[in-house]
Amino acid sequence: MRAGPSQEEIRRHNLGALLRHVHLGGPTSRAELTSRMGLNRSTIMALTADLTAAGLVREELPRETGRAGRPSLVVRPESARVYVFALDVGVDRLVAARVGLGGTVLDRRETVRRRGPFVMEEVVGPLAAFARQMHRKTRPDTVCVGAAAAFSGGVAREDGVVRFGPNMDSVDVPFGEEMARRLGLGLPVTVGNDANLGAMAEHTRGVGVGCRDLIYLHGDVGVGGGVIVNGALLGGHQGFGGEVGHMVVNPKGRSCGCGSLGCLEAEVGERALLEAAGRFENHGAQPYNGSNGSNGSGALIGRDAVRAVVDAADRGDIVAQAALGRVGDWLGLGVANLVNIFNPEMVVFGGTLREVYLGSAAQVRSRITTDALPPAREHLRLRTSALGDDATLIGAAELAFAQVLADPLEVLARAGS
Amino acid sequence: MRAGPSQEEIRRHNLGALLRHVHLGGPTSRAELTSRMGLNRSTIMALTADLTAAGLVREELPRETGRAGRPSLVVRPESARVYVFALDVGVDRLVAARVGLGGTVLDRRETVRRRGPFVMEEVVGPLAAFARQMHRKTRPDTVCVGAAAAFSGGVAREDGVVRFGPNMDSVDVPFGEEMARRLGLGLPVTVGNDANLGAMAEHTRGVGVGCRDLIYLHGDVGVGGGVIVNGALLGGHQGFGGEVGHMVVNPKGRSCGCGSLGCLEAEVGERALLEAAGRFENHGAQPYNGSNGSNGSGALIGRDAVRAVVDAADRGDIVAQAALGRVGDWLGLGVANLVNIFNPEMVVFGGTLREVYLGSAAQVRSRITTDALPPAREHLRLRTSALGDDATLIGAAELAFAQVLADPLEVLARAGS
Repeated sequence: MRAGPSQEEIRRHNLGALLRHVHLGGPTSRAELTSRMGLNRSTIMALTADLTAAGLVREELPRETGRAGRPSLVVRPESARVYVFALDVGVDRLVAARVGLGGTVLDRRETVRRRGPFVMEEVVGPLAAFARQMHRKTRPDTVCVGAAAAFSGGVAREDGVVRFGPNMDSVDVPFGEEMARRLGLGLPVTVGNDANLGAMAEHTRGVGVGCRDLIYLHGDVGVGGGVIVNGALLGGHQGFGGEVGHMVVNPKGRSCGCGSLGCLEAEVGERALLEAAGRFENHGAQPYNGSNGSNGSGALIGRDAVRAVVDAADRGDIVAQAALGRVGDWLGLGVANLVNIFNPEMVVFGGTLREVYLGSAAQVRSRITTDALPPAREHLRLRTSALGDDATLIGAAELAFAQVLADPLEVLARAGS
Repeated sequence: MRAGPSQEEIRRHNLGALLRHVHLGGPTSRAELTSRMGLNRSTIMALTADLTAAGLVREELPRETGRAGRPSLVVRPESARVYVFALDVGVDRLVAARVGLGGTVLDRRETVRRRGPFVMEEVVGPLAAFARQMHRKTRPDTVCVGAAAAFSGGVAREDGVVRFGPNMDSVDVPFGEEMARRLGLGLPVTVGNDANLGAMAEHTRGVGVGCRDLIYLHGDVGVGGGVIVNGALLGGHQGFGGEVGHMVVNPKGRSCGCGSLGCLEAEVGERALLEAAGRFENHGAQPYNGSNGSNGSGALIGRDAVRAVVDAADRGDIVAQAALGRVGDWLGLGVANLVNIFNPEMVVFGGTLREVYLGSAAQVRSRITTDALPPAREHLRLRTSALGDDATLIGAAELAFAQVLADPLEVLARAGS
């Protein structure tokens, strides 16, 4: 109910909108920008000139138009020059990447994370070292315009503190603050829930482009969710929205790390699948204590273990097939509930749920048919993540770019100074 | 990613914003509008002059300011002159009202609806007759600017067709089209799901004013839901979003009208409560076939029956207390799931769920404590509907006003011609 925007706000909006076009859509001709943005040619020229002067885009002749007449100049993001740091803190792994404007991954480092409680130094240490290594390799004229991290846990919008992360015993962790201090770039590190960022990534660059109502389900050790409602990420009152893994689907079911019984995570997460397949080995109080890929006794854990079950089922292993059938049934019930609640256009299975879905699609679909209201499911599309294991990382990069896309010249002036 | 708005769009936006201010906030001084809308005094004066000339608002001296100096004129909606028709199609009742700009109910008619399958004439007939009666009583200078209906069923956004309504056996009912034809006002009748409209009503005029993330749960025969996400109603891809009553909470539970087992509606709806309280009587295939208030054998049904159980529990009836305890436990589980999924600021219990919640608040809260993630529930407020049985009707009125608030002068010109 506020008044309309000022001329200065409109200009800032337009600069951001143009930059977002080439950031998400890649090199775009002036003519196309003119028609897509509904502005006249001279405005597009002026906006492009401002962004070019700031070093955010450059204009060049298109390669080959095949048409007569003077070709329209193509506006291209300065991917090699303007970049962000994207970080991903999973239960099993730590990833850092340098991502250029336009979404190009310019450099990337990854290491395994030993399962167990969160220890700040064991996470920020390796990630800061990765960032330093990558930073040293950049040319002098490059400029870092942001940094953000995906974290396997619930992140408060207000202060970026990780308020819960049952699978890493993490409670009230001021991760962003500490990470920013250790990066030492003079930039804040924005933190987001990994599944929320995966949803944003699939929505902007993955299988869900053009889809305004989308649910992304992310399997790691647990099950996370990110929900896009009418084109925007569902955050809720404090930013904890989308925790669909803790929707109870089986009130007399398996116990969950959150303390409840029968959460979706407890019924379809890694442990549920491995136990049902007779491939889970518990070593004392910590459910997992080996290094990644296998536990102390040599049994596989993590993504490798989930993939092994799906592979075994493919080869005809009846126990593995039954395990996938059971998990697929609960997964289908969870999705049916979400279909009734959100009426999404698409549900995307990412992380280890990609494999689980591929191995149990019949059960998932059958359960949706039984339990979702027909009109709510009739146009539903079920898809697997297009960005694979890096969906959450790409989402973190998009979070890091958010500021420069909102106010390109201001952020660049700050970053350059 | 479109360009900024034109001057004409800004003016239209500002006219709508000013009208919305006085529509929702009541008479407001020019000075207050100036500060709230962030516009200068001369712009507010010009906008007010335009709205006054169109007969949408009028300016007058405030009653008594108690302050020295020239008082700021108060802008007041023309409630007696500009109105909409609001309709409410419940399983048990039909309501029509004439609601003035500003939300004043100017006239209202209600009749019972016999439970059973939806028959078009039995619904549009009485509602059209009510509208005619009310229309005949209006002064010649009044103007109707819209009409809308709340319907107990899932309504497609695209064409306003009621696609499902298990409690009225209604499938693919073009209710809005037929209702508009019968009203004969030359106005379309916009149709919305009753619980969605209840959510909008509580958000704009009820207990949830100022609350950007709110869930409204509506108990009728079944259980409907409406979800406000970041200030806007969750519609989903086709408009069926918010059907939280068909979230399965007890997969081996009671059978639901939708064909599933253990939906929230099946566990906490009217029939679940009455059966648990030993007060349900089934007469053949139709679960209900008496007139409203009681069935053939004299047992109460509907709101009266639900209230009777709560009253009995209050008076110490152990069976009624146990029934409420059981239903409250499932209701709490459903709310806990929604808290994890949406991280809402407030959950509002409306319709018969108002009574159910008041009679089982301890169980509801206990279950939320067990099953909702602590950070997601720590600021949660549980409330009962402020608008009572008319929440859905008031929501229909707001839906009917939506057009005139979006483009005041255009809609009024059309209505007056």
